[in-house]
Amino acid sequence: MLKVIINGCLGKMGKVLTKCVQDDDELELICGVSQHPNDSALFKVYPKMNDVVEKADVIIDFSHHSTLDDVLSFATKTKTPLVIATTGYNEDELDKIKEASKIIPIFHSSNMSLGVNVLLRLVKEATKMLADFDIEVIEKHHNKKVDAPSGTAVMIANAVKEVLPQVEYNYGRYGREAKRTKNEVGIHAIRGGTIVGEHDVIYAGHDEVVELKHIAQSKDIFAKGSISAAKYLVNQGAGYYNMDNMLG
Amino acid sequence: MLKVIINGCLGKMGKVLTKCVQDDDELELICGVSQHPNDSALFKVYPKMNDVVEKADVIIDFSHHSTLDDVLSFATKTKTPLVIATTGYNEDELDKIKEASKIIPIFHSSNMSLGVNVLLRLVKEATKMLADFDIEVIEKHHNKKVDAPSGTAVMIANAVKEVLPQVEYNYGRYGREAKRTKNEVGIHAIRGGTIVGEHDVIYAGHDEVVELKHIAQSKDIFAKGSISAAKYLVNQGAGYYNMDNMLG
Amino acid sequence: MLKVIINGCLGKMGKVLTKCVQDDDELELICGVSQHPNDSALFKVYPKMNDVVEKADVIIDFSHHSTLDDVLSFATKTKTPLVIATTGYNEDELDKIKEASKIIPIFHSSNMSLGVNVLLRLVKEATKMLADFDIEVIEKHHNKKVDAPSGTAVMIANAVKEVLPQVEYNYGRYGREAKRTKNEVGIHAIRGGTIVGEHDVIYAGHDEVVELKHIAQSKDIFAKGSISAAKYLVNQGAGYYNMDNMLG
Amino acid sequence: MLKVIINGCLGKMGKVLTKCVQDDDELELICGVSQHPNDSALFKVYPKMNDVVEKADVIIDFSHHSTLDDVLSFATKTKTPLVIATTGYNEDELDKIKEASKIIPIFHSSNMSLGVNVLLRLVKEATKMLADFDIEVIEKHHNKKVDAPSGTAVMIANAVKEVLPQVEYNYGRYGREAKRTKNEVGIHAIRGGTIVGEHDVIYAGHDEVVELKHIAQSKDIFAKGSISAAKYLVNQGAGYYNMDNMLG
Repeated sequence: MLKVIINGCLGKMGKVLTKCVQDDDELELICGVSQHPNDSALFKVYPKMNDVVEKADVIIDFSHHSTLDDVLSFATKTKTPLVIATTGYNEDELDKIKEASKIIPIFHSSNMSLGVNVLLRLVKEATKMLADFDIEVIEKHHNKKVDAPSGTAVMIANAVKEVLPQVEYNYGRYGREAKRTKNEVGIHAIRGGTIVGEHDVIYAGHDEVVELKHIAQSKDIFAKGSISAAKYLVNQGAGYYNMDNMLG
Repeated sequence: MLKVIINGCLGKMGKVLTKCVQDDDELELICGVSQHPNDSALFKVYPKMNDVVEKADVIIDFSHHSTLDDVLSFATKTKTPLVIATTGYNEDELDKIKEASKIIPIFHSSNMSLGVNVLLRLVKEATKMLADFDIEVIEKHHNKKVDAPSGTAVMIANAVKEVLPQVEYNYGRYGREAKRTKNEVGIHAIRGGTIVGEHDVIYAGHDEVVELKHIAQSKDIFAKGSISAAKYLVNQGAGYYNMDNMLG
Repeated sequence: MLKVIINGCLGKMGKVLTKCVQDDDELELICGVSQHPNDSALFKVYPKMNDVVEKADVIIDFSHHSTLDDVLSFATKTKTPLVIATTGYNEDELDKIKEASKIIPIFHSSNMSLGVNVLLRLVKEATKMLADFDIEVIEKHHNKKVDAPSGTAVMIANAVKEVLPQVEYNYGRYGREAKRTKNEVGIHAIRGGTIVGEHDVIYAGHDEVVELKHIAQSKDIFAKGSISAAKYLVNQGAGYYNMDNMLG
Repeated sequence: MLKVIINGCLGKMGKVLTKCVQDDDELELICGVSQHPNDSALFKVYPKMNDVVEKADVIIDFSHHSTLDDVLSFATKTKTPLVIATTGYNEDELDKIKEASKIIPIFHSSNMSLGVNVLLRLVKEATKMLADFDIEVIEKHHNKKVDAPSGTAVMIANAVKEVLPQVEYNYGRYGREAKRTKNEVGIHAIRGGTIVGEHDVIYAGHDEVVELKHIAQSKDIFAKGSISAAKYLVNQGAGYYNMDNMLG
């Protein structure tokens, strides 16, 4: 059993992760850390990483970028592999993470969903092979979502552009003269109900279409992805790892 | 075997229809009519309907609105049921069609696809029952299509609006503040490759989605729909019929 | 605000319903009933319906068929409309429900999902209009589901058969000589991951396909459907109602 | 302009290829070869490759395995790159092809569809990265297709098995005890109407699904793929090439 410490265990994603860790036969949650500990948890919660006395095999961090110094000093001191799923770091903080990765294995990704990362990988592959095809991105989300298109749809479009720098994004066709240009990538934001998140990439050629799609059913996928990262990381030496390394 | 005359037999849709009639075990093509007859056809082609000497059970018209007088005078004179799939009639011509339908059965529709008409019917039904759900329309067509959205997508949106007059159409969401409003119907035009035509209507509610979809594979569907109309029409008395009558 | 009592409030579906009622601006949960009351609920829970002293506008029952006498005697005595989502009643019990519906409005359905009921309605409509098309049913569920196909897939196939009695079900094509017969309805059970439930009905004709699909994201849809039923029921007189009445 | 000779130009696929070559701005059809020449073609048709007097840049062969000696002797003699899309060769014939590829560039594939080959490539990639997910294959074809599942579906399943040798194929789930086993790959054959061919590979994990799909609209895709192969091949030296080489 891998012994796990969760940093940020009482936040929204921290709670989701806690449940996923507890449900996983290969993992044991030994304690959590939260800046705002309360009595709701059924396990030990410390206010700071450096207060922790237990020895763990891996730390998973879904907290706030401001806790970085605390978690890095603890992890390097105790030589504990560290999975960082927290976002919002500035350049200075990113440098500290890279520096610490010379001492311990650190896995760092701003999107921990395994499926989304696989989709991004496949999109790059497919775009190389189907460079001549027309590419369109369709995403679907719930009716409360404020921004359009989704951040993931932009990541997908950017993955296409990485392979085909000439493409330009079109966010909505309309009119009597709205013919598609060759280098256009249409990005379409469907909104409705409580749809968690779908991303569909269409490659349309002469008489054939290839489609790559990801459907998310809940936020669990980010927790599950960080757990996969943790299992991968405990077998690595010091270094800076991301989803691309794990996907092989 | 139903004996069929095709008016406009050498036009684009006329040729498609000719093939479909010849492939249908219940039908016999006895002759065609074309304003520009040539030697390419393997059957008798007259320059005008009123030149035809054969007796038919039904006429299918995929020609030009300017041939209306010719086809109506022949059909009423010979008491032959008439399926009109031609478009572009003015008010005056439409009145003539209705007038003739007092003498013979006439079937008239500007979209002969059975599937599209079924979709429109189901959309009206579903919209009544799911009035609270968020409705979005997604259509896909080939990259040569000039207008966006497609005429059929507009027909679908109008069918929704017939049931829910308060809805407003949104042809492309984009921006950091692009949240869906309750009465919005998003209409999304995907373009790529040689896609013949797909229309997808999404009803998204709390934790469930109902989807109604039509996929066209070729222009044959307009020919096939007019043949279904012909088979239906030969069993009717004088009158003016459309897809709604046939769908029952 | 409609005052609601939930019978079976501490069961799996009862808990889901409790949350949905509490989240609904038009509803007020005044108390619950559970055969096994405990301290976990933040509202009053009685062991039996007949112990309830509050006056409600509607009762929603997601309990066990054995509580029927208790709930019917309370509802008829207090003249409270009753929504029954519980399953497993025998003939005798069903008679009692019908008898009680002479005194109070009762809504009874064994599948409370609005979307599934809409799908069933649309399937009947579509099957009548597309009787010539080839019909196939595809359902997708999680990998823990024991039976195949799903009960809902069978309901869909039966709705097709109601319109076209000659159809026969085929649960898996395989072999070098496995050509589809005209009257076949293929039913395909896809299993994987944690998919909550999808049902897809395909009508395939000559060069066109019509698809009707339902996607469930959680068990909330059964709670939401029973709430819609409750809101409908409070405006009805004594009588026996089901989803078909509500859908209009 | 690349000068092209088509071997087997009057067969079913030969005719499709002829049209595609004639429609391609970068290609010029200089002549064809057919064992059964007739007057229907608007270009020169020879009965045998060795009768051809024109000099071409590339030969595309959609003929019959029995013409192999003729085409190989002509191609090697004239040093013309050769694309072979013909199927049904025996071991002896395959050896002759490989032998000839020491003298000229030869491209050989039994499935020339670019999209299907891309799908197969992506399936291998995805299966490696999502080895823990449940994999299911769904294919759709017209109601005249005799065998189930399709050859391409089997190719897809075999691509999965290449990565995960432990998987076993399940061709139809049915019954009260039909729970999915971990190593099962369900293969589902939907049949209806005139569907040309769709293949959908589903990777279902915890709360997320990745889908890879190919949709064929016509047999043109095999012609187009062989043309892409031809354009690729004229830039290569002597050797034996296939889709994997071309996809890079």
